[in-house]
Amino acid sequence: MIIVLKPDITKEEIEHLTEKIKAWGLTPVVSKGIERSIVGVIGEEDVLRSQPLEAFPGVEKVIPILAPYKLVSREFKSENTVIDIKGISIGGKRIVNMAGPCSIESYDQLKGIAEHVKISGAQVLRGGAFKPRTSPYSFQGLGEEGLKMLREIADNLDMAVITEIMDPRDLGLLEKYTDIIQVGARNMQNFTLLKEVGQSKKPVLLKRGISATVKELLMAAEYILAGGNFQVMLCERGIRTFETATRFTLDINAISVIKQKSHLPVIVDPSHSTGKWNLVAPAAAAAIAAGADGLITEVHTSPEDAFSDGEQSLLPDRYSKMIDLIGSVAKAVGREI
Amino acid sequence: MIIVLKPDITKEEIEHLTEKIKAWGLTPVVSKGIERSIVGVIGEEDVLRSQPLEAFPGVEKVIPILAPYKLVSREFKSENTVIDIKGISIGGKRIVNMAGPCSIESYDQLKGIAEHVKISGAQVLRGGAFKPRTSPYSFQGLGEEGLKMLREIADNLDMAVITEIMDPRDLGLLEKYTDIIQVGARNMQNFTLLKEVGQSKKPVLLKRGISATVKELLMAAEYILAGGNFQVMLCERGIRTFETATRFTLDINAISVIKQKSHLPVIVDPSHSTGKWNLVAPAAAAAIAAGADGLITEVHTSPEDAFSDGEQSLLPDRYSKMIDLIGSVAKAVGREI
Amino acid sequence: MIIVLKPDITKEEIEHLTEKIKAWGLTPVVSKGIERSIVGVIGEEDVLRSQPLEAFPGVEKVIPILAPYKLVSREFKSENTVIDIKGISIGGKRIVNMAGPCSIESYDQLKGIAEHVKISGAQVLRGGAFKPRTSPYSFQGLGEEGLKMLREIADNLDMAVITEIMDPRDLGLLEKYTDIIQVGARNMQNFTLLKEVGQSKKPVLLKRGISATVKELLMAAEYILAGGNFQVMLCERGIRTFETATRFTLDINAISVIKQKSHLPVIVDPSHSTGKWNLVAPAAAAAIAAGADGLITEVHTSPEDAFSDGEQSLLPDRYSKMIDLIGSVAKAVGREI
Amino acid sequence: MIIVLKPDITKEEIEHLTEKIKAWGLTPVVSKGIERSIVGVIGEEDVLRSQPLEAFPGVEKVIPILAPYKLVSREFKSENTVIDIKGISIGGKRIVNMAGPCSIESYDQLKGIAEHVKISGAQVLRGGAFKPRTSPYSFQGLGEEGLKMLREIADNLDMAVITEIMDPRDLGLLEKYTDIIQVGARNMQNFTLLKEVGQSKKPVLLKRGISATVKELLMAAEYILAGGNFQVMLCERGIRTFETATRFTLDINAISVIKQKSHLPVIVDPSHSTGKWNLVAPAAAAAIAAGADGLITEVHTSPEDAFSDGEQSLLPDRYSKMIDLIGSVAKAVGREI
Repeated sequence: MIIVLKPDITKEEIEHLTEKIKAWGLTPVVSKGIERSIVGVIGEEDVLRSQPLEAFPGVEKVIPILAPYKLVSREFKSENTVIDIKGISIGGKRIVNMAGPCSIESYDQLKGIAEHVKISGAQVLRGGAFKPRTSPYSFQGLGEEGLKMLREIADNLDMAVITEIMDPRDLGLLEKYTDIIQVGARNMQNFTLLKEVGQSKKPVLLKRGISATVKELLMAAEYILAGGNFQVMLCERGIRTFETATRFTLDINAISVIKQKSHLPVIVDPSHSTGKWNLVAPAAAAAIAAGADGLITEVHTSPEDAFSDGEQSLLPDRYSKMIDLIGSVAKAVGREI
Repeated sequence: MIIVLKPDITKEEIEHLTEKIKAWGLTPVVSKGIERSIVGVIGEEDVLRSQPLEAFPGVEKVIPILAPYKLVSREFKSENTVIDIKGISIGGKRIVNMAGPCSIESYDQLKGIAEHVKISGAQVLRGGAFKPRTSPYSFQGLGEEGLKMLREIADNLDMAVITEIMDPRDLGLLEKYTDIIQVGARNMQNFTLLKEVGQSKKPVLLKRGISATVKELLMAAEYILAGGNFQVMLCERGIRTFETATRFTLDINAISVIKQKSHLPVIVDPSHSTGKWNLVAPAAAAAIAAGADGLITEVHTSPEDAFSDGEQSLLPDRYSKMIDLIGSVAKAVGREI
Repeated sequence: MIIVLKPDITKEEIEHLTEKIKAWGLTPVVSKGIERSIVGVIGEEDVLRSQPLEAFPGVEKVIPILAPYKLVSREFKSENTVIDIKGISIGGKRIVNMAGPCSIESYDQLKGIAEHVKISGAQVLRGGAFKPRTSPYSFQGLGEEGLKMLREIADNLDMAVITEIMDPRDLGLLEKYTDIIQVGARNMQNFTLLKEVGQSKKPVLLKRGISATVKELLMAAEYILAGGNFQVMLCERGIRTFETATRFTLDINAISVIKQKSHLPVIVDPSHSTGKWNLVAPAAAAAIAAGADGLITEVHTSPEDAFSDGEQSLLPDRYSKMIDLIGSVAKAVGREI
Repeated sequence: MIIVLKPDITKEEIEHLTEKIKAWGLTPVVSKGIERSIVGVIGEEDVLRSQPLEAFPGVEKVIPILAPYKLVSREFKSENTVIDIKGISIGGKRIVNMAGPCSIESYDQLKGIAEHVKISGAQVLRGGAFKPRTSPYSFQGLGEEGLKMLREIADNLDMAVITEIMDPRDLGLLEKYTDIIQVGARNMQNFTLLKEVGQSKKPVLLKRGISATVKELLMAAEYILAGGNFQVMLCERGIRTFETATRFTLDINAISVIKQKSHLPVIVDPSHSTGKWNLVAPAAAAAIAAGADGLITEVHTSPEDAFSDGEQSLLPDRYSKMIDLIGSVAKAVGREI
């Protein structure tokens, strides 16, 4: 931690500051520059982090040196985390494909879609039973009934299952039916929920909030690891910017940045990060080229009848072509599907 | 709802689209322009809103005409909503002042601060017992013990109480101790929580998410009103932008925009929306000048020892001066404190 | 300047780095922390600023301590700069009001508007003769003919004149007709233009780019001062964010931030920063409450016939009411109009 | 153009509006909905675009139907524009590689870098002689002397040349030395400059402003085409968002969006859009996977001595590896290098 002092700081203020730092068990090192003096602090940066140093008189700004996350960091664990779900490896050489409808609408709808994506090569079936909807008047999901369909259909096709949790009280219920618990973008900093899934034995896919920095995403993941659950995947799903031509802006740089800073697998959602079905395949190809470990894609047999996200859902044959495309790209960058 | 058609849409595709619209009980009106044709749809826009029209072949884009919220809108209720809490009117001529520490740290800390802000003129005591912290290693709040302190100290000073809810399971607990339930920015689209507080009889202060549009804020409030709780205040607390000189960017325009679109009171948080104590007073003055109904401000007797947000907390005498300032500004715009 | 080293930096890399720093005439001070070592550099920070230190092996990040601007800073000049234009003081106790149409459309249009705003209390007449338009097919301004009208009408009413420069080749022309040269938001980092107006003896109003940080705005102003022209006003005119309910987001915090960091006057444009005439007055009131030194406002006698910006132009009587409002607010914060 | 009327619009206001529309030579079609009435306008949308319809009483909002650009649009020209520069095709099947230093520093520096990138496969040599720098105290470029070096070295290596224009007065000078004129991000809406290069016979690479929408980028290009110069390439070089882990956010979606809306070639700058050399290669691979027609990359033989952008410049051998990588990716998506 570096503390930059104001040019007009008094001797007493410097003393007051350094005394406090010593009282916290740390060592302050004052160095005088030509225009500014600074205080370097030696010791556990965490101790300082929780102190509002900018509230001290004479302090201009405080500059942390270390990242605030630990368990999720590459420094804590240098090799990539590989998560195994029923024989599907996530984070290794092979790209994982998760696909399915946005919402589970009916048994037949889900079954039809699941069969298609399975044939195309998807290993994990997605489908929402509890839906976070902007409007209280929109379809809110089928609940447990939907979860049962999801499990049964996936089992019949020998697929794994991913579905979203919205309520901490539903954890037990979800654990009964799903293989991966998804925490949605809107809940990335729902710390109650993060602590809850941190207690689970199920792998978690944590979606980046639409205006969360990579650092905040890693801190949110840290909540889950700190709770004891190390099986976490991070999902880039587009961030909110000024651009309105697409629903969100896929932050393609984030993939490499996360890979540098963390050992956790990175999944990309090309459906939400574009918002339009005809932009999904190029976004998916770009994600794989940039180093993503997998994709989670919305597919629907009849997008125009979808209860949600129809405009960004791929028809099965388009999904199949997308898989071919990313298969080639994966090979080009030394991966496989 | 206006549906803009692609220039190369076929006769069959137009027919397919208009048939569907009729099947939903609505009336399509096709009008041919020179370069584009459009379909206007007459009937309940809500029916269409949930249909993924952009997934139809030949459709270029879909343009909603009506706002998606109802109960929160000025059209639903033209007069301002005034909320009465133990004789304190929020949303009327008088500006409400809520103040206190970010976190409840101890009985003495809270009591000292509360006495100061009461003397300065604050009517509502704020203080967090459950804290949403970016890091799992930061202070997470005193929990129920803190709530008891908050209630007792406020009662002794004849103040009302506001505190934040983070877990839907805590609603009953909070209702025992608080007069106003705060839903924080990170939980603005935690729909589980919104539905829960929608069932409460306690007034709710809903903070705008850091990257939520005004429309999304109003939709989040709609969840609470749709649940039966009409006593909702909206809180502008700064949005995330590219600017890093301040913690957040106070969206001062949002105050007037909300006032035009909705009947609900608007409170501004000058502490979070600036992030620095020496920017708080001008932000507060601006908020009142722009039409805010109240302020929620962080105050601490010893900011340098605060467990959280010390850098943006005002010392009691600075808070007192701020109240004087906003008193003058309130008068200048026909309000009072 | 603080240089944070990677944990795995080698002894040779540290030596290579410190040798280079010494070669630049500066003194490196290495201090070893528990998890990271850092190098503090003593000497002229400017020397280092132009070196790509992050390109050195073993360097994790580089943290500047000092602001990169000099002449515009409060440290260079602690008292407020007050600019005098024909007896009108800008930056002192009195608020300056600049007003007029977006574009000069005709002699009669401009004269009608000018008479109205003069009566309401505006001291400076604005009007564009060269217009930066998003579309090449939109009205591009009357050019010199417009400048002549502007000068003549302002002289008759004893007002000063402000108008925008777009082309460095027009400086001589503009100097003949205007009292203040405006550099528009789109040209804030048009360094050719900045250097050109830096050579002028006329005061300059520099508008903040829609996505420029305050620091970048100050650096752009530094170009003008470094050229020898110290009569610069900074203009906050709204920044681009994700919010679409308004044309731009007025960054009200920027006023106080600029005032802390710089001695230059701050003018606010409530027309562009909202984009809608019915949001202009509250934004103007907020700006004055937050400490702005003046306003530049679009007024039109017939907004529905305006060649540009009609939707954000005030009718003369609404402008007159706005002036009354800001007069009261100015008084509340110790200023006057 | 669709005009949405306020619920309380009067009969007289509707008549006033429709009369005006007829006076402009257009046909208004009023249709009454349940909650809102709208006016569709048939005729040349351009006529309406310049009218401030939102300034009319009773008008709630105005919704354009058509894109405001013409010459740059796919509808104007459905086949891809392919630009031929000395036998190098840009916009066809083959990916173009432009590379070189940020700034031209000396003959030897440029020659060394040019030889390396030529061997790696670059066809176009980049290098700035006029540099847009945030600080007036930074290196501003070698000017004409630099241009001469650029031309001579490129000619010796049989490469084409790209360099940036900053001042409209320099067009003649640049035309003497360069094959492609670059308009930088900060000048994307410097309309004076756009009009000037619109008069040139040289191809132009137009960089997207850091906060420009795709629509605004296309409108800026429209200025150049409207001037008669149809040889325009668009360059995605990262946009400004809240994320600070990278210098800018590469808007990978923009590539497909531009390709859908326009016939012009798209070049990606992986150096500026990441800001860190170790993120450049994955960004470049992603760009090619998403459909870019070429790359413009910063390369330096000694990044730690670079006068500008050293931290994002690739060493020659890393550039060479990057070319291998994008060669594989190009093949995977049906392109070649």
